[in-house]
Amino acid sequence: VPESAGPAGVDLQRWLEEAEVAIVGLGLMGGSLAAALRGGGSFPRRCRRVVGIVRRPDAAVAAASWVDAVTTDLGALASADIVVLATPVRIILELLPTAAAIMRPGALLTDLGSTKDRIVRVMSSLPGEVAVAGGHPMCGKEAGGLAAADAALFAGAPYILCPVPGRPPLAIERLRHLAARLGARPRVLDAPAHDRLVAAVSHVPYLSAVSLVLAAEQLATVAGPAVWEIAAGGFRDTTRVAAGETEMWRDILLTNSAEVLAQLDRLSTTLLSLREAIGSADAERLAALITDAQHRRRTLFQ
Amino acid sequence: VPESAGPAGVDLQRWLEEAEVAIVGLGLMGGSLAAALRGGGSFPRRCRRVVGIVRRPDAAVAAASWVDAVTTDLGALASADIVVLATPVRIILELLPTAAAIMRPGALLTDLGSTKDRIVRVMSSLPGEVAVAGGHPMCGKEAGGLAAADAALFAGAPYILCPVPGRPPLAIERLRHLAARLGARPRVLDAPAHDRLVAAVSHVPYLSAVSLVLAAEQLATVAGPAVWEIAAGGFRDTTRVAAGETEMWRDILLTNSAEVLAQLDRLSTTLLSLREAIGSADAERLAALITDAQHRRRTLFQ
Repeated sequence: VPESAGPAGVDLQRWLEEAEVAIVGLGLMGGSLAAALRGGGSFPRRCRRVVGIVRRPDAAVAAASWVDAVTTDLGALASADIVVLATPVRIILELLPTAAAIMRPGALLTDLGSTKDRIVRVMSSLPGEVAVAGGHPMCGKEAGGLAAADAALFAGAPYILCPVPGRPPLAIERLRHLAARLGARPRVLDAPAHDRLVAAVSHVPYLSAVSLVLAAEQLATVAGPAVWEIAAGGFRDTTRVAAGETEMWRDILLTNSAEVLAQLDRLSTTLLSLREAIGSADAERLAALITDAQHRRRTLFQ
Repeated sequence: VPESAGPAGVDLQRWLEEAEVAIVGLGLMGGSLAAALRGGGSFPRRCRRVVGIVRRPDAAVAAASWVDAVTTDLGALASADIVVLATPVRIILELLPTAAAIMRPGALLTDLGSTKDRIVRVMSSLPGEVAVAGGHPMCGKEAGGLAAADAALFAGAPYILCPVPGRPPLAIERLRHLAARLGARPRVLDAPAHDRLVAAVSHVPYLSAVSLVLAAEQLATVAGPAVWEIAAGGFRDTTRVAAGETEMWRDILLTNSAEVLAQLDRLSTTLLSLREAIGSADAERLAALITDAQHRRRTLFQ
């Protein structure tokens, strides 16, 4: 896509409208991106063409109605203006050099991975002809997979943009435009800061959800299945994210282990403070701790 | 209310329709109970009269439109057929003997407290003329207080009924009828079992939510407020219950401390297993743990 004269916003709009977008991996996130880009319902089409690339032939059959074309051949990346890697993080890390070698000069290579530092490091090692920028739309759903994909998934969600050090800023500007066109709220953060912050608001909350389910399971083995019969709204909400995809979460945790462990330490220390206040029946101390959390939580989501 | 001849179901229906219900404490739960009993919208009226008893005169003014009559005088319990204590647990414990001394013989005394063992023990010490049964409707809302009250709050929620050992079963049958008329799912559990199970599905999930907020707050003090800007749906859900009322939760935790601490131990052990799998990059072990939780969570809420 050539850079035309005129204001940058017009260029970006034309760039996206004329673009062929290749999405590698059509699960919840990749499928939702395809749906949002192709329009339908009250959503307008955002780009010229969406090509899906999937691993298995049966996945290609299932994906056919979600994209303009689908293939199992990574060679399709050669004609794309934008390539979005929408697989679990460890596959993103493997695919990045392969994709860059196939793509044509000037095309944008980005991803939807939930951890960014390792991805951005690999991006910075790629040839300079490909424009690179890390991306993380912070949205999801209890149900995973293509069947749960939804063009409205990105609406209002934070979409983190991670610049690749030493690369020209055009890639980030293009990705910012793409995110805004999906209805998301783009925000630039460097990759290490991203990983530190999402450990606190996403990865450790996920571990907490998993642990609540497993700890209740342990109780059920001694106290019987009644524990599940009385699980209500509070348990449903606090554990919702534990229903997520295994491979996705395993890769997230293992590619952000240092920050996850550091934040887990903060969680454990806090749990210990609460435990001590309860164990010593210190009503004042307990009330102070839970009032702090209450005020913050009420300010955060109104 | 005299026991008429005929099938028990008809008696129960008439009992409730003719009853004057006194609700002590008009917050989210008490106010929602008042609204559900008085009907309105698509809900029919369930009883003859609802009287609210509140502590402060200004609360009485605010509550006036939610009940048929409101007072700050516990003497109003003398004419009630059903008395429901809807305050935080420690105030329920204080009010039980006072209420029983005022109530007339044969009337039902119950409560909406989230812990049951201590309440049921106090109930068992009350004079036999008052019918007693512990109750716990398992529903709530992010927002607390009377302004958030909602006649539909009980619809579909588990409503735990705790018998008082040694007392006739009529009290439980009446409370079961009341819960069913609110649209809830009544379920009998003895009080110690109730407290053990809700520690796992409600109290420890609450502590986890509080700890996630406080641990993120700790990170924000070193990493800046960006942590709050990127908090998205996962954080909103896992921490929702942390917005609850301080006094209510303080009393819950302190009146169920043994079971809460036992379940916190199970949570800590599980978090430690996850930490070890992440720290040693044991992808197989990590995937096994999170897959267990995923299967259970997906089975539980479909």
